[in-house]
Amino acid sequence: MGAHNIQIFDTTLRDGEQVPGCKLNKEEKLVIARQLELLGVDVIEAGFPVSSPGDFAAVEAIAAQTREATVCGLTRAVENDIRVAADALRNARYPRIHTGIGTSELHVLHKLRTTQEDVVARAVAAVKLAKSFVEDVEFYAEDAGRTDNEFLARVCEAVIKAGATVLNIPDTTGYCLPSEYGAKIKYLADNVRGIENVTLSTHCHNDLGMATANSIAGVINGARQIECTINGVGERAGNTALEEVVMVLRQHPDLNLTTGINTKLLTETSAMVSHLMQMPVQANKAIVGANAFAHSSGIHQDGVIKHRATYEIIDPQEVGAPDSAIVLTARSGRAALAYRLQKLGYAFGGQSLNKAYASFLVLADCQKEVQDHDLHALVEQEKLVAVE
Amino acid sequence: MGAHNIQIFDTTLRDGEQVPGCKLNKEEKLVIARQLELLGVDVIEAGFPVSSPGDFAAVEAIAAQTREATVCGLTRAVENDIRVAADALRNARYPRIHTGIGTSELHVLHKLRTTQEDVVARAVAAVKLAKSFVEDVEFYAEDAGRTDNEFLARVCEAVIKAGATVLNIPDTTGYCLPSEYGAKIKYLADNVRGIENVTLSTHCHNDLGMATANSIAGVINGARQIECTINGVGERAGNTALEEVVMVLRQHPDLNLTTGINTKLLTETSAMVSHLMQMPVQANKAIVGANAFAHSSGIHQDGVIKHRATYEIIDPQEVGAPDSAIVLTARSGRAALAYRLQKLGYAFGGQSLNKAYASFLVLADCQKEVQDHDLHALVEQEKLVAVE
Repeated sequence: MGAHNIQIFDTTLRDGEQVPGCKLNKEEKLVIARQLELLGVDVIEAGFPVSSPGDFAAVEAIAAQTREATVCGLTRAVENDIRVAADALRNARYPRIHTGIGTSELHVLHKLRTTQEDVVARAVAAVKLAKSFVEDVEFYAEDAGRTDNEFLARVCEAVIKAGATVLNIPDTTGYCLPSEYGAKIKYLADNVRGIENVTLSTHCHNDLGMATANSIAGVINGARQIECTINGVGERAGNTALEEVVMVLRQHPDLNLTTGINTKLLTETSAMVSHLMQMPVQANKAIVGANAFAHSSGIHQDGVIKHRATYEIIDPQEVGAPDSAIVLTARSGRAALAYRLQKLGYAFGGQSLNKAYASFLVLADCQKEVQDHDLHALVEQEKLVAVE
Repeated sequence: MGAHNIQIFDTTLRDGEQVPGCKLNKEEKLVIARQLELLGVDVIEAGFPVSSPGDFAAVEAIAAQTREATVCGLTRAVENDIRVAADALRNARYPRIHTGIGTSELHVLHKLRTTQEDVVARAVAAVKLAKSFVEDVEFYAEDAGRTDNEFLARVCEAVIKAGATVLNIPDTTGYCLPSEYGAKIKYLADNVRGIENVTLSTHCHNDLGMATANSIAGVINGARQIECTINGVGERAGNTALEEVVMVLRQHPDLNLTTGINTKLLTETSAMVSHLMQMPVQANKAIVGANAFAHSSGIHQDGVIKHRATYEIIDPQEVGAPDSAIVLTARSGRAALAYRLQKLGYAFGGQSLNKAYASFLVLADCQKEVQDHDLHALVEQEKLVAVE
């Protein structure tokens, strides 16, 4: 059986851009959109056209620029939002309108202050209106993560009938456990009439640190699109990180799920978004953090020097990162010290290595990291002689 | 049925400290250890005593200082490591030696270059030796995540017989999916003779961004200890983040799993570790990131202003964070603008709010964030009059 393709829907420029203080201007958005197309994303969510004149112009320009990817604009289930989005997308080669409404009890009662019946009616009307402008209409059931599955299925059936092509099931507040989120997707896949003609999509937030695992649980259970952002940027704790879900699927070929992402561009795309949004990526961020492929403990260094795969599941080159680093600290062992000394031209072994290592530890206990120039000085000061 | 208590094993000072360039000195380690005890962790892994004289001294000092928590020292399955660790822990009220060896095929063949039989023999000998010094002996099966379950069970049975009290099942390379890791723990819980007398422990790495979800899958399937670090610090993409697993269990009371952590200290503990390790935490980090409780999009702001829970599953005060922030950007809506204007003493509504909002959007499209002083200037420049 052939592998299933998972569509990568990037929302760095829409949900990602909702980071406080990280709004992008039109030129910045165009640069990122072009990079996303190079990266191979299937859908670029370019913005929320009705939100401001600047965002309208950005969506309009991205729609005109983009040739391969679908360009999507967000709306609420509100007539004017949809008309404005359709206008912004009019020059897109593959336009998609993304409309929707809250479906959880909290959203229906406390935010929308209405009834379930009214929510279904507004959802259907919004999808029908969007469908009058574009063929490709995605519907989101906001706070689906906390929505009762039976009502959620009812909403899904209604919008499929109204013409929706993609159903987005957001865990808006980042609440679900992977088992719960996977079960929700499975329930919809098994119970919604017409579901076989549309694409189920995951959209997970990271409030409890499980956005990646939830998205993967979603595609294991039948979703065929993942909504995500570069570096996991987004409001609060952010969205699912594109680089993480793509690499999970790549490292687990047994899942039989593939994407069209050119992983060699992940590192440079991460750096571009971090720079333009002024959103630093922490060193211990998976896949794209500065330390993602750096080893400092003696046990790990010894292993990596002998056989890379003992402590590394991803070859850094696969994601366009520099080679694995062997960093020297007081937690490093003899093997790492010998390895680095050898790179500097010193051949130590046996007793001479033991002596060098003792001097090294005294130095390393006093500083965070031991650099090459420290090693040269150490060899000289201690009058260490390399004798095999 | 009463809830099960999950032991929180903090390894910020050992596995966490293996971050390249982030080594802590003895005084820094003592400060963090005291904070961890206040936070309520059950076990403090204080270091790897044989690794350097500085680390030996730190473990020794933490052992003497700590009154409530168990203090643990790491060793390889090597006689000298274990003797040195026992010495460093001699003044601990509740000492634990943590010893172990690689069990995956990659580790047995490529790193240790030996046989499975030899690995079992070395594991048993190490546990027996550790047991001659302390009652509480934890065994780790390195790279358990990629170890064949049958062999892993054999190793576990052997070390339980030798006296191990805790079995640590590390996903050393951060490879597992939550379903796989959960199934591994369940396999051990169901198949290892004597398992009911010991504690199964999770130890997950974040290379693919799933450490938190994997740890939770572990405790759902029978593990009763989670190994983790503050801010998820650690080598490569780091370890499981303590703040995330603790809040997952707290937000999901249906799991019937509790911890002894005082969550109100999470934010200050995060800041302390970040500062002392010089490891910045990214703004979109779950629970402890600067933006974890900040809202900037209009849709979300409107919801939060009406009813906090529509977009927030955690009350910021529960983790000792400042109140939720309503940040004004070009993605903000009328409700957020009115809310912030009201806080500044301006009462706008109806047409006057529409006019103020239009002026606000022009300004917001030009800058990343709109501050209070911008709002005062806007009201003045536009000669906006607050008329209800």
